[in-house]
Order: sequence, then C-alpha cells, then structure tokens
Amino acid sequence: MKIGILGGGQLARMLAVAGYPLGLEFVVLEPSADAGAVPLTEHLHGVYDNRTLLAALADKADVVTYEFENVPAQVAELLSSRTQVYPAANALAVAQDRLMEKKFFHKLAIPTAPFAAVNNLDDLQQVMTTFAYPAILKSRKMGYDGKGQVVLTSPDQLTAAWESMQDAASIVEGFVPFQREISIIAARRVQGEIAFYPVSENQHRGGILRVSRCCHADPLQTKAQDYVTRLLEALNYVGVIALELFEVDGQLLANEFAPRVHNSGHWTIEGAETSQFENHLRAILDLPLGSTKPRGYAGMVNFIGGVPQSEQVLAIENAHLHLYAKQLRSGRKVAHATVRCDEKIAFENAMHLLENLANQTDDS
Amino acid sequence: MKIGILGGGQLARMLAVAGYPLGLEFVVLEPSADAGAVPLTEHLHGVYDNRTLLAALADKADVVTYEFENVPAQVAELLSSRTQVYPAANALAVAQDRLMEKKFFHKLAIPTAPFAAVNNLDDLQQVMTTFAYPAILKSRKMGYDGKGQVVLTSPDQLTAAWESMQDAASIVEGFVPFQREISIIAARRVQGEIAFYPVSENQHRGGILRVSRCCHADPLQTKAQDYVTRLLEALNYVGVIALELFEVDGQLLANEFAPRVHNSGHWTIEGAETSQFENHLRAILDLPLGSTKPRGYAGMVNFIGGVPQSEQVLAIENAHLHLYAKQLRSGRKVAHATVRCDEKIAFENAMHLLENLANQTDDS
Repeated sequence: MKIGILGGGQLARMLAVAGYPLGLEFVVLEPSADAGAVPLTEHLHGVYDNRTLLAALADKADVVTYEFENVPAQVAELLSSRTQVYPAANALAVAQDRLMEKKFFHKLAIPTAPFAAVNNLDDLQQVMTTFAYPAILKSRKMGYDGKGQVVLTSPDQLTAAWESMQDAASIVEGFVPFQREISIIAARRVQGEIAFYPVSENQHRGGILRVSRCCHADPLQTKAQDYVTRLLEALNYVGVIALELFEVDGQLLANEFAPRVHNSGHWTIEGAETSQFENHLRAILDLPLGSTKPRGYAGMVNFIGGVPQSEQVLAIENAHLHLYAKQLRSGRKVAHATVRCDEKIAFENAMHLLENLANQTDDS
Repeated sequence: MKIGILGGGQLARMLAVAGYPLGLEFVVLEPSADAGAVPLTEHLHGVYDNRTLLAALADKADVVTYEFENVPAQVAELLSSRTQVYPAANALAVAQDRLMEKKFFHKLAIPTAPFAAVNNLDDLQQVMTTFAYPAILKSRKMGYDGKGQVVLTSPDQLTAAWESMQDAASIVEGFVPFQREISIIAARRVQGEIAFYPVSENQHRGGILRVSRCCHADPLQTKAQDYVTRLLEALNYVGVIALELFEVDGQLLANEFAPRVHNSGHWTIEGAETSQFENHLRAILDLPLGSTKPRGYAGMVNFIGGVPQSEQVLAIENAHLHLYAKQLRSGRKVAHATVRCDEKIAFENAMHLLENLANQTDDS
C-alpha cells in the first residue's frame, strides 16, 4: 500500500517513520526540495495546487492524507475524485475556518469562549461594545502558531488592530482566564472504532507550543473524550484528530481542532504503546487501532529556531531526539525531544534538563 | 551526517527507521532493486564488490557500516582507506571464519564446544575418531540460517557429509546438550563506553531463529556481559555486537558472534528504552549510548516464508508489526512482530497468539 501525503514536512516524516514497519510506502507532494520527509519518501516536487502533481499523487497513492489543514477545497475535491482521501474534505473545511469551527462546536453542544464574526472595522467596534477587554482578534483562515492574531486591550487600539488584519474575514474571541491548556488526541478508523490517548497538558509561549505532558487519570479525560467523540462522529471522521481545550474552573472550552497528527501528541512516539502516527495510518487503512495506553510518564519539549547538540540531548537518561532536518529559522519548530520514564522523579528531572536546553537554543 | 550501509535488506531498513529521528541520512549499496531499505534510502544499485560503487559509498557516507558480516576483506579495506568504517575489518575477519572465531574465543578464555579444523575427508575421519556422535560439520565461511551445515550421526555417513561441503574448509563442532540458547546484544561507542541489553532467550528450528524473549534478571547476565566485554575490548570494537551462547549446566559456551545488529535483538525496538538499531548508530557516531533497560516484558516472533494478514497481527493487544517489504520465498525471514507488556500474563498470551499466526504462515 502506498500512502500519499499533501505536505512533506516533519509530520509527513514521522508518518513515514511510523509506516515503514507496517510495510507501507509513501509519496509526498511538497514544494520544498529539502523538506523533512523528502529523503525517505517519493517526492512530487511542486506547489500544492499543481493539478498535474495532484493527479499524480492521487494515482500513485492508495489513500491520500494531509499534514496540514489549510488546503483549498478544490484540492481536496480533485484528490477525492480520483482516490480515497482521509480525513475527508468536510473536516478540512470546518477546521480551516475559525468561525465555521466555533459554530460547529456550538451545534454539537461543545462549549467555547464567546466569539463573534468581524468583517470590517465597524463590526469590530460594534462587537467590542459587548465584549470585555482583553479579547483576541483572529483571522478566520490560515492562522497557525500565533500568526494572524492580535490581542485587543483597549478601544483606541481597534483601528490599528483591524488594519493589521488586512481586511481578512475575522472573529473576535473573548479572553478566557483558563487554568490549563489541554488537548486530546483520538483516532477513528474507517469502520468507526475510536481510540483515545490520555489528554496532554500543553504550555504555549508566544503562540507556539513549547511543552506537552501526558496526563495520567486526568479528571477531565472523560469530558474531553465525550467532546472529541461528538466531533468525530458528526464529521464521520477517519484518522487522527487533535482537539485543543481550555480548562476553566473544572469545565472545558473548545479552542480549535486539527484534522491531523498534532504536535501535542508527539510524546506518544515513545510514551504510548502505539504512536499517534502509527494510529493515523492504521485508521485510514481501516486496520485495528493500536493500544493508546501510556508507557509510564511521558512528555515532549519542542526546539524552536535552534536545536542543541545531539550529544547534549542524548546524554539525558530516557530522552529521545527527533530532528526534522529543517533549515533553522527564527520561531520555527525544528526538532523535539520526548521523555518516557517509569518513575515520576526521573521524568520531571529529564523534562527539566530538556527545557533548559530548549531555552538555551530558542531564539523566539 | 550520512550513514553508508553495505547491504539494503531489513537490517538496513530498520537502521534507517531508527536513524531518521536522529537527523541522519542513509545510502546503501545493494544488488537488489527491491530490497527492504531501498524505498527509504539513497540506493547505489550494484554488487558488493563493484569498486566504483564502493568508492561512491565511501565518498557519500561519513561513516560506513554493514548489515552482514560476509564481506570480502578487500571490500572492507577499500572502504577503510576512504572513510570511517565501523565495526572495523578485524571484527569482520574473525566473525566470517568459524575456525578463527572459535580460536579467538579460546584466546579470550571464553569457553566453547569442542571443535577441530577439517580440510578434507581424511581430516574428517581422523577427527571423528576422537569426537562423539552426533557432531556438526560446518563450513568455516558463509554460513547463516543453518546453511552450510550437516549433522554427523555415524561413521558411514562421513563421505557423503564431506561431499556435501564441496571441499570447503570446514570445522567439526562437538554437539552440546544445551538447556537454553541465549544471546547478548551489546553496544560499544568510539570512546569505549559499553551498554548491555538483557540477554535474549532464543528458539531456533531448522537452523532459523523463530522466537526471542528478553530475560529479566537472568542468572547468567553477568557472565554473558563478561564474555562480550572481552570480545569488544579485544577487537577495539565499535557498534552493536551479538554474542550467541549455549547454556550447559549453568555454564555458558560461546557459539558465534555477529558484528552487527541481530535478529535476537529485534524485541528491543519496542521492548527496550533504546533499540539496538538506534544504539548501533549512536555507537558508530560516538554519541552517548541510550538506556538499554527493558520496558516491561518483551519478545519477538519471526515470520518465515510467509506473513499473516496485517489485521491479524495488529488485532493482538500490544503486538507491533515489522514488515521487511521482501519477496516471499521459502525459509526466508520476511517480517517479525514484537510484543511489549507491563504484565507477564498479557505478554505470554500475546506471544502465544503470534506464534500461532507464525506457524500458520511458516512454510519451512
């Protein structure tokens, strides 16, 4: 079986590493000649809306999947007309538009922060007569890692804030004084079976995920599973999904979902019985899902913009290095390390050492 | 860093899967167009003694290593003259000649079964006046998976047995009534640090390894470590080594060693904190060796000649499938599965299910 992936970055790279043991082969459509997945996959070299290459991808692959959600609807349609595509276009359509996404959560009775659509400065000024400051203005589309967002702190800032959006259709979200950011990774296979990982507790800084930890027996696990199940079933979703949530006074508010493997699930590579990457492949091939049980204490630290010497990471007991073979660039995720330990003290010690290394090389 | 591998079969495939997360790239010299490592590495397509391709391999790779030990001395010399080669030629020279190997064990005071060199029928008849029947006649070179071996059961069989060796320089080994076959996998990095895995208990049938289990706190662990340390240090060895041993009445007799990652260590992929494949790469790059601690109970079942449907293997809780993408052929290792469990009962149950699947598809 050959898996086609739209995008050939680190997520495609880790899918391929997880998939070769299952006997799979991989073809990626990727505009960059030196993206992370290129050395270990067949590479269709070109832009994502090149119709000739999309047709080639569809023809070569038994199943096509994505490493990111910002795919034009026509691309998903073209691929779907020629081969099996998982997750299907409906999930991408919802995930790539913050307004549709929030409305979809509401339809499924999944609580969110207050939000309102904003299409011009008048809208924004009107909305902010009813929202408290601070609030967050976000473009509806193409945002990731904190891009396309501005925090609104006072009425006299609204004109400048709107100008920074360059007339993009946007939404305002009320600021949520959350206690924790968590996410739940789940996989649903073609025939409908669902597997849930333990929720991850996530730390962001500057809009970029820095650290994730697997939570054992989290009191909000059941609620998170309930919400992600509603999403998966409403979308008739196939593959791995990540739902990001805020914990506010024991309740969960949905922030957004990613219709793909997710950075907050990278700890599953060594930290769970079956990684999110392998389970995504099992799901889209309609194979039995693997156990999602954690193997002891598990977590992940991202390396942003720079990466420590391999020696330094590998000298940390139970640390596992994952380099993406990407060009270093400010604010860019270039690698991560996971830790897995049977003992909590050893785990926290290793995480602490890794966070120190990450802070030394982080340029953001 | 680019790693060159002589051979592009399943061991090279698993080295590459282990090495991409470390940011490594791979180039293999491999005569077959469809060998297991070809889809995920740069492929130099030709025979192992093609001097042009060997030079290309040496020039492309920062370090060259092997997936098998039967490499002509000139090949190792040619590579060594152009790049770093680990393990070095001396280890290959000993490992590929059963007589040299046995003599080397003796020099290091590592006990073996009784043995004698045999170069013609007269030698054989002479030797068998002093050895008990049954004994085993083996070619000194190029034997693997039970090939090039014949069991000697009576004097009137000697002429036929010798003819079957086609005049190959050989040895006779006394038959050892062993209680167990075990192996120890160890890694030694360039600067001399050594890491040992728990010993594996191995079951062969028809000269082919079928099942390996990680042994917890084995009473012979210390002795096995002592013997393999003597080997590693005498050879100034760099990389992963596997030493196969017979347990006879609480003593260990060395059978042979493999200067490479080894089938009896495949359980380390999921069953140890760091796999033998990753530790081989760390060792030859002089990086800190990873923890060799087992993650619970761990074992491996080989699939010989045929492989079950992926669904069947993946439906077994905590089973992990490793397909080699090889053409099916009678008696050929084409895949394996590992099991890793926190509970012994669950482990033994999963191993039992896998052995049943293996027996159903095994054509040998």
